[in-house]
Amino acid sequence: MANRLGKQTVTFSTQPRLHSSYTIVGPLEGKGPHALDFQEILKDDMLRQKTPEKAERLMLETAIEKTLSAGQLKPADLQFFLAGDLLNQITTSSLAARNYPVSFLGLYGACSTFLEAMGLAGVLLQGGFAEKVLIGTASHYQTAERQFRYPVELNVQHTEINHHTVTGAAAAVLSNVGAGPCLTHATFGSVTDWGLKNAQDLGSAMAPAAFSTLKQHLTDTQRTLEDYDLILTGDLGKQGSKMLKILLQKENFAGLDRLEDGGAQIYGSDLKTGAGGSGAACVAVMTLGYLLNKLNAGRVKRVLVIATGALLSALSVGQGETIPCIAHAVALER
Amino acid sequence: MANRLGKQTVTFSTQPRLHSSYTIVGPLEGKGPHALDFQEILKDDMLRQKTPEKAERLMLETAIEKTLSAGQLKPADLQFFLAGDLLNQITTSSLAARNYPVSFLGLYGACSTFLEAMGLAGVLLQGGFAEKVLIGTASHYQTAERQFRYPVELNVQHTEINHHTVTGAAAAVLSNVGAGPCLTHATFGSVTDWGLKNAQDLGSAMAPAAFSTLKQHLTDTQRTLEDYDLILTGDLGKQGSKMLKILLQKENFAGLDRLEDGGAQIYGSDLKTGAGGSGAACVAVMTLGYLLNKLNAGRVKRVLVIATGALLSALSVGQGETIPCIAHAVALER
Repeated sequence: MANRLGKQTVTFSTQPRLHSSYTIVGPLEGKGPHALDFQEILKDDMLRQKTPEKAERLMLETAIEKTLSAGQLKPADLQFFLAGDLLNQITTSSLAARNYPVSFLGLYGACSTFLEAMGLAGVLLQGGFAEKVLIGTASHYQTAERQFRYPVELNVQHTEINHHTVTGAAAAVLSNVGAGPCLTHATFGSVTDWGLKNAQDLGSAMAPAAFSTLKQHLTDTQRTLEDYDLILTGDLGKQGSKMLKILLQKENFAGLDRLEDGGAQIYGSDLKTGAGGSGAACVAVMTLGYLLNKLNAGRVKRVLVIATGALLSALSVGQGETIPCIAHAVALER
Repeated sequence: MANRLGKQTVTFSTQPRLHSSYTIVGPLEGKGPHALDFQEILKDDMLRQKTPEKAERLMLETAIEKTLSAGQLKPADLQFFLAGDLLNQITTSSLAARNYPVSFLGLYGACSTFLEAMGLAGVLLQGGFAEKVLIGTASHYQTAERQFRYPVELNVQHTEINHHTVTGAAAAVLSNVGAGPCLTHATFGSVTDWGLKNAQDLGSAMAPAAFSTLKQHLTDTQRTLEDYDLILTGDLGKQGSKMLKILLQKENFAGLDRLEDGGAQIYGSDLKTGAGGSGAACVAVMTLGYLLNKLNAGRVKRVLVIATGALLSALSVGQGETIPCIAHAVALER
């Protein structure tokens, strides 16, 4: 197993890298402290579409088109398109994929999907199966609310531990050549379930998955938290980030100041968004926006992104199942 | 791109192979002409569970356990578990994955999911990222009916072109060593959408995807239909198989007698099952049951499996979208 390290980590010696990318966020996300990190802020989160699902898809299609044009690429230059989203049967991704006559691999890892795609893109490039791989995801506050919780028209009040699904989309092309930051490792998580059942508090449910993948990544790579300039978790939110730190403190990890969370940060503290952002787009726009800007500006050199996903459905919750969670990590270096 | 051939095909020179596998089907599938091909036929499709979703999961868990014991493997021997299913947010697979402390990659390709998993398992093995990869899927007539159509209690009549979702589960371990049939190529399909909207006739919607992937596979590998002893499509059913043959005839392909369809065959003609079987388990049990038996008995030497998936959701149909479809193909040799 030439490209493997330890129990759950794969390594990329050929240095697959980010060739080009694009991020779009909704109006609310555009009011947060990271507004300047995103390439496009929508004025209207419906994009003049009849349904939020159609708006979600248009966001993804736009992010892809802009990624290709930024990278001076045509669809024929790609070998794979890897994508997934939160909607039942990942229809946002499947419908968007019609535009690209390349191999499509549909993925589902809830809010971790984008990192599952990024890690697999690394695998395809490192393994000599592809030269250019397109990845993408999207989420929308209204589509997620009405699928997982209540239609927004009901105006159900959110609590402090509720997440707010990020309206946004992101896409990237990964390649073995170019000048972008490189992927050095991917740690693909295993499903972690500590028995939590409260679908209103996904941060607490997901924190053990982030903990498990982070610990395994450090063991596999023989690294410490301090080997990274920044460790960005996807969307644990305020509650989940707190829990992750407690879990790490209990086992005496040093370097907790390296941890940041995309969900906890994306809205800032003045917006009424509960525990913070979530949704498949959250970690995607924070990675390709915020983190990539930091890498490109030289403010950080080696970073780890850990995207978490709560693998529940309205039906599994209704049938009394606990919430299985997962986290995938990718290490990036400039 | 050392492991690539043409536009959509990857090649496996290290010959990843089927190490062990297991198939389970429901009582109705056990009355069909392939009954003897499956390792287990359920007497009760509810497996004494409270809901069909729990029964579906138990089938998958059982298939996995039996696959591991048949291969004399422990979960710790695996590096990856790749799975997906038809349920919203693939909860059958995610909940089953809790039992295995290995990297989990959630996939969604509707009824093509199992071949997406098999092709990706080949990629992970060929690329030196893993030594043993577990793949699995399941579907259940009752869970699919109530999610995609109507609850079975309503007793809605089916038409001749309706598919009947297969109740069943299948799992396999793939490895670079052993005596099982080898994977030589995987052709990952692109999303194909010819504008069909009738969710009651998925065979017609999926046939163009099967056609596209089959044609691309033959172009990429410079093979003909006659280079295969048998070409098994997943679950086009009677209507879809007819359409695929028409499409191939129009372009003067020879060797159409090599084509068989898992969905059209699984129930036989005496059972009232419309166009035939479908569901994520259909191609999985037909490949690991029927086809593997033929390969192991030496009755066929080189085969191609093409699994098709209709990437629709109840919501996408409700919003007037056409049905995007996909097909993934894997070539197996003994």
